[in-house]
Amino acid sequence: MNLPADRLRGSLLSLLLVSATPAFAQDGWKAADFKLGNGMEVVVIPDHRAPIVTHMVWYKAGSADEPPGKSGIAHFFEHLMFKATANHPAGEFDSAVAAIGGSDNAFTSYDYTCFHETVPPQALEQMMGFEADRMRNLVLTDETVATERDVIMEERRARVDNDPEALLDEEVDATLWQNQPYRIPVIGWMQEIAALNRNDAKAFYDRYYAPNNAVLVVAGDVTPETVKALAEKTFGKIPRGQDLPPRIRPVEPEQNARRTVTLSDPRVSVPSFSTQWVVPSYHTAKPREAEALNLLAEILGGGTRSRLYQELIVNKGIASSVGAQFQGRMLDDTNFLVYATPNGDTKLPELEAAVAAEIARISRDGVTDEELEAAKNRFVRSMIFARDKQESMATIYGTTLTTGGTLQDVEEWPDRIRKVSAEEVKAVAARYLRQNRSVTGYLLPEQQAGN
Amino acid sequence: MNLPADRLRGSLLSLLLVSATPAFAQDGWKAADFKLGNGMEVVVIPDHRAPIVTHMVWYKAGSADEPPGKSGIAHFFEHLMFKATANHPAGEFDSAVAAIGGSDNAFTSYDYTCFHETVPPQALEQMMGFEADRMRNLVLTDETVATERDVIMEERRARVDNDPEALLDEEVDATLWQNQPYRIPVIGWMQEIAALNRNDAKAFYDRYYAPNNAVLVVAGDVTPETVKALAEKTFGKIPRGQDLPPRIRPVEPEQNARRTVTLSDPRVSVPSFSTQWVVPSYHTAKPREAEALNLLAEILGGGTRSRLYQELIVNKGIASSVGAQFQGRMLDDTNFLVYATPNGDTKLPELEAAVAAEIARISRDGVTDEELEAAKNRFVRSMIFARDKQESMATIYGTTLTTGGTLQDVEEWPDRIRKVSAEEVKAVAARYLRQNRSVTGYLLPEQQAGN
Repeated sequence: MNLPADRLRGSLLSLLLVSATPAFAQDGWKAADFKLGNGMEVVVIPDHRAPIVTHMVWYKAGSADEPPGKSGIAHFFEHLMFKATANHPAGEFDSAVAAIGGSDNAFTSYDYTCFHETVPPQALEQMMGFEADRMRNLVLTDETVATERDVIMEERRARVDNDPEALLDEEVDATLWQNQPYRIPVIGWMQEIAALNRNDAKAFYDRYYAPNNAVLVVAGDVTPETVKALAEKTFGKIPRGQDLPPRIRPVEPEQNARRTVTLSDPRVSVPSFSTQWVVPSYHTAKPREAEALNLLAEILGGGTRSRLYQELIVNKGIASSVGAQFQGRMLDDTNFLVYATPNGDTKLPELEAAVAAEIARISRDGVTDEELEAAKNRFVRSMIFARDKQESMATIYGTTLTTGGTLQDVEEWPDRIRKVSAEEVKAVAARYLRQNRSVTGYLLPEQQAGN
Repeated sequence: MNLPADRLRGSLLSLLLVSATPAFAQDGWKAADFKLGNGMEVVVIPDHRAPIVTHMVWYKAGSADEPPGKSGIAHFFEHLMFKATANHPAGEFDSAVAAIGGSDNAFTSYDYTCFHETVPPQALEQMMGFEADRMRNLVLTDETVATERDVIMEERRARVDNDPEALLDEEVDATLWQNQPYRIPVIGWMQEIAALNRNDAKAFYDRYYAPNNAVLVVAGDVTPETVKALAEKTFGKIPRGQDLPPRIRPVEPEQNARRTVTLSDPRVSVPSFSTQWVVPSYHTAKPREAEALNLLAEILGGGTRSRLYQELIVNKGIASSVGAQFQGRMLDDTNFLVYATPNGDTKLPELEAAVAAEIARISRDGVTDEELEAAKNRFVRSMIFARDKQESMATIYGTTLTTGGTLQDVEEWPDRIRKVSAEEVKAVAARYLRQNRSVTGYLLPEQQAGN
């Protein structure tokens, strides 16, 4: 039914790589936006290539908005949204989508929770009706909550606790983030999931599930006028919820030490490592810093033309996989990641030193104008793929608007990327990718010597 | 004036080592306890050896009770308690103590904040009057708060940010604790201290500074009857505050990976390391587990007779300092720590391996009955020193009662220690001191190679 929270790191990454890709304004992909009387924001992206429409309701509430000790409640609540409402029994919404040949899903991340359907345009009003209904009319019983809690605990067991890589990811996150709530896994920690109850769910629902805390994104074969009329008829009927305070969360203290996390497990067959740094996000960065980090990730490790790929896989043959990622669309400071898996008999320390050497080289000598230009062009190419898919286009708007960004940020983003200089890329590498503020996770095949 | 929060790790350690030492019941040190009508708990420990009395007011509020993003407010508030009240200008309380030749101080830790005076018995009522006054009548102005905030920021700069060892301690704590609030430094993180304001102070005061959230401990040349009469006249007049919910805080998830934190700094002259593990405290442990951890710390690294000292300093000559510590009196799970500094040309990895070998040996082969008996006897001897000092005796009661313990826990503690078996000491070593759940901090003299 729902994208499990623990897979969201993966799916989030791909979303964000996609979000390194807009530029709709120039050629007719211009979005319209307006607000309903109850404060609900609406974005419409007309796309008349095919008779389908993607309907997404985004809530500005994710795992980083959870109260202390209640980890997992955002994702838990996403599951509960598929239960009965005062007007519809559980399963009726899903059945209706299936009956018209549509698809639906939901996902939870650190800063947002999203519910979405892809259907023919004539079913849009029905989808809005269902979503508007469950925004406020969910029937939360102790029994429903207890049953779903068991489901989620089993989900956690299967996808995290039985997976050394997922376990290590969790511990690395909690070691990278020492104050920001991103240190807490989206799916939640087992002992806290186990204690979640109806009161926690009700409190989360009452606080965050309201039209003035939601963004409706509709992409597809519709006009803004139609969407507006339908939205007023459905979502527009819901009373405005309480005014929430600004989303100001604890932020990181300065990091002065290198940190490592090592997981040795007999289930691991090939060793690997990844190194992360705290860096600004699009929302927290100074102008063009986040864009420069996007280009740095692309040049350093964004695919087969990147430095790490060319040097470590093609030239030296010491890595079987390598890459760099920047998760830019986050409300608070985010992470920059490099990772590598050795090839053949190469030992992890040798591979790690080779990766460090590439990072040191880019921090010291910068990037060439040619590779910067090529990286910008690769972004533009990937944009073509992204906007070809209605759902990813809508997702770019949703993630941006729920992480402190604006429509203008989406639309001006390609221009801002084009303006980044080679000097700016070098500057963010030198400033942020320093060993004495890094966190490295090692995944090793077997128990090391020692007690 | 106040014990700075960042020194509390040190002072707390010594307090807790002292708390490995009671047994008053057998020989006339029996404490009396009762409650005032407003819910304030009172403990009296008569000690008629000299005409002095130690008066301590303990609040069940420490840094681990702070709201998210408000780190440092507990310690900040401790400072503010020395400012003007509605009835006394700032400094009057201190001057009164000084005028009668007494001493006063205060300290903040994770689970409690304590204000105390040592004075002649005839000044006890006056002390109670002052403490009762500032429990509720503090005058908090924007100006007072702003001035004291500057003082605390300077304190943090001087004692933490300019001290590599203190910086490393902070990052290790935040790496050891990934969910419990003990990960947050008592003094607070700079960016959060800088944002604390009068509203934060007022909210903390109104919530926690009330008779029903305080424990009065009086040790010295007084009778329980006198203390009761005086307490009723002073503290007894304060209305009961709001009922606080149980102090249930987020707890740690299971740890599956070894973590390290490395700080390299030119100001460091000699390298050192320490390794920590999350272990149960007296409040969270199963019966006799915490006592066994106390004895394990004593046998492994509690002074010159310990295994680490004998093996690494005396026999091998590879360490210049070495030790083990268990901070048992905490409300939530706590830490067990070993540390070592190399001697001469010994390299850190060699020393670390030698320490690990001693831990592995005790986990595998256990301890002998002889060394267990000797460790228990050393505890009894150190008790004699502890109870000889009125303030440390009172402190044992205060820390116990503000970390979920009872008077009975204090009084039965020596018997419980005596009942620990060698098998139980081995069991806690084997269960908790495992490398794959350890966190090691390295303090290195200079920048390592690398970017």
